[in-house]
Amino acid sequence: MERKRIVIALGGNALGNTLPEQMIAVKITSKAIVDLIEQGHEVIIAHGNGPQVGMINNAMAALSREDPLQPNTPLSVCVAMSQAYIGYDLQNALREELLNRNISDIPVATMITQIRVDAEDPSFSVPSKPIGRFYSKEQAMELNQKYDYIMKEDAGRGYRRVVASPKPIQIVEIGAIRALVEAGQVVIACGGGGIPVTLNGNHLKGASAVIDKDFASCLLATELDADYLIILTAVEKVAINFGKPDEQWLSKLTVEQAQKYMEEGQFAPGSMLPKVQAAVNFASSKPGRTALITLLEKAKDGIAGKTGTIIQLTEK
Amino acid sequence: MERKRIVIALGGNALGNTLPEQMIAVKITSKAIVDLIEQGHEVIIAHGNGPQVGMINNAMAALSREDPLQPNTPLSVCVAMSQAYIGYDLQNALREELLNRNISDIPVATMITQIRVDAEDPSFSVPSKPIGRFYSKEQAMELNQKYDYIMKEDAGRGYRRVVASPKPIQIVEIGAIRALVEAGQVVIACGGGGIPVTLNGNHLKGASAVIDKDFASCLLATELDADYLIILTAVEKVAINFGKPDEQWLSKLTVEQAQKYMEEGQFAPGSMLPKVQAAVNFASSKPGRTALITLLEKAKDGIAGKTGTIIQLTEK
Repeated sequence: MERKRIVIALGGNALGNTLPEQMIAVKITSKAIVDLIEQGHEVIIAHGNGPQVGMINNAMAALSREDPLQPNTPLSVCVAMSQAYIGYDLQNALREELLNRNISDIPVATMITQIRVDAEDPSFSVPSKPIGRFYSKEQAMELNQKYDYIMKEDAGRGYRRVVASPKPIQIVEIGAIRALVEAGQVVIACGGGGIPVTLNGNHLKGASAVIDKDFASCLLATELDADYLIILTAVEKVAINFGKPDEQWLSKLTVEQAQKYMEEGQFAPGSMLPKVQAAVNFASSKPGRTALITLLEKAKDGIAGKTGTIIQLTEK
Repeated sequence: MERKRIVIALGGNALGNTLPEQMIAVKITSKAIVDLIEQGHEVIIAHGNGPQVGMINNAMAALSREDPLQPNTPLSVCVAMSQAYIGYDLQNALREELLNRNISDIPVATMITQIRVDAEDPSFSVPSKPIGRFYSKEQAMELNQKYDYIMKEDAGRGYRRVVASPKPIQIVEIGAIRALVEAGQVVIACGGGGIPVTLNGNHLKGASAVIDKDFASCLLATELDADYLIILTAVEKVAINFGKPDEQWLSKLTVEQAQKYMEEGQFAPGSMLPKVQAAVNFASSKPGRTALITLLEKAKDGIAGKTGTIIQLTEK
């Protein structure tokens, strides 16, 4: 198979809610990713951090309650810390899986990555991105009263804190990421959607937000002129009429078809919709660019055209 | 002045004990570092994390007391998080200072860095590296009883937790760091002395330790074939008979002289001794390599030969 440049968008929820869960999750993830590297592809990995950044934010808040010398830590700093918290484990699991397959000449590196957002992004006034663990209704009301956290019911699984999720505009460290990719490194970048920053003169100011990792991955893939953007999710394919009698799993979609389905409201906001939108953004950014939405374990088969939902500018 | 490759070792204590302190500290630090970049030198920055890794460790411990779902976080993961916590602020302050001087073509990047240590390193049985904040004697005894933390009195300033500080053997991500340096990036690496890991087959296992940042910086400088290792500290020069009537500030030292003074016990363990030892290790690793120990604000003058203590293999 021809060597392709592939950006993989990995869900934060797929990385586990605790460190022991993460250690197991990164092993499974690494097998699927190394399958692609073994085939000769260039791989760059971006990942979410929903549960992790919430946990770190809670830890820093717990410290500031115990230690009056420590002021609370901004969400942007927690995103930065989540990049190291996840990247360290993920890069080691990848390294180990590569070595287990006798691939000893491909190193893995994690880049602290900032992504510029617009200070006027409308999302700042309508927080929608869930972070951290689930709470009961009573706990959620207490957190709202105590910390002004905005708590929302999340798909019947309980209540979670929601934060702003502005659109990514520019990857600050793109030059460093590109240099590492060209040097033959597997790069983990834009962790947690990137540390959100706004430009204020020459100053980059941390924003209280978490960028959607699918949109961040799309920007990363576009900037690196990748051939593929793989968005990994909990289903093998994208469906229309999901959960209804006329449910239909889709193997191929043109940008035009996908846009039509989005307009029809076929995809759930905060779930499949941002994934399809990010896939459409990538596929429509330049002819020849392919987005693939599928399960982690099916990434290899998806690249081979055997499964998943492929989104391309035009029918090939 | 000829273009030199310079590795700078920055003290974790010089970065402040809280985030607001860190924001101020990195601005001052960046001015001194950009002075060197402005002269055309290649700069790579390593830094300590004593106060920061202790704070993060305390935060994660506070969370696990509040949230039974969260087990305690290993020290190695806290070191990883401290690299992002510090690197994010430091790289932005450097970026801003570069732009303020109209240097727009030199980007700054932070690499998550692991350093391999020996699982049999004798330091694991004699913890000596202070981390985190200072406590009263009563608080220290409580922490010891509650968490088995080993607490030690630190230079008359109170009690601090001490952890193992094994010698660094190998920088796992050295290839990535080198690629970024060669691509013209200012690189922040080996933060907090690097994440300590031991090799177990193909697996890198986090170690409960904090590597001395001066020794890590020396290894980094050696591996990058740097011309200079600058170890920044709280005094302008190294002294013998420090604090005594015959105190003598030293401008130049050969490796041989420095070794003699170390044997005489001229330098305080845990303070000036590891700095002089790291400087000697670097200067003796290859002819032409120069170590400089001085104040942050004097780095530029030190490189120009105007102040600080220079340590070289032989008298020039």
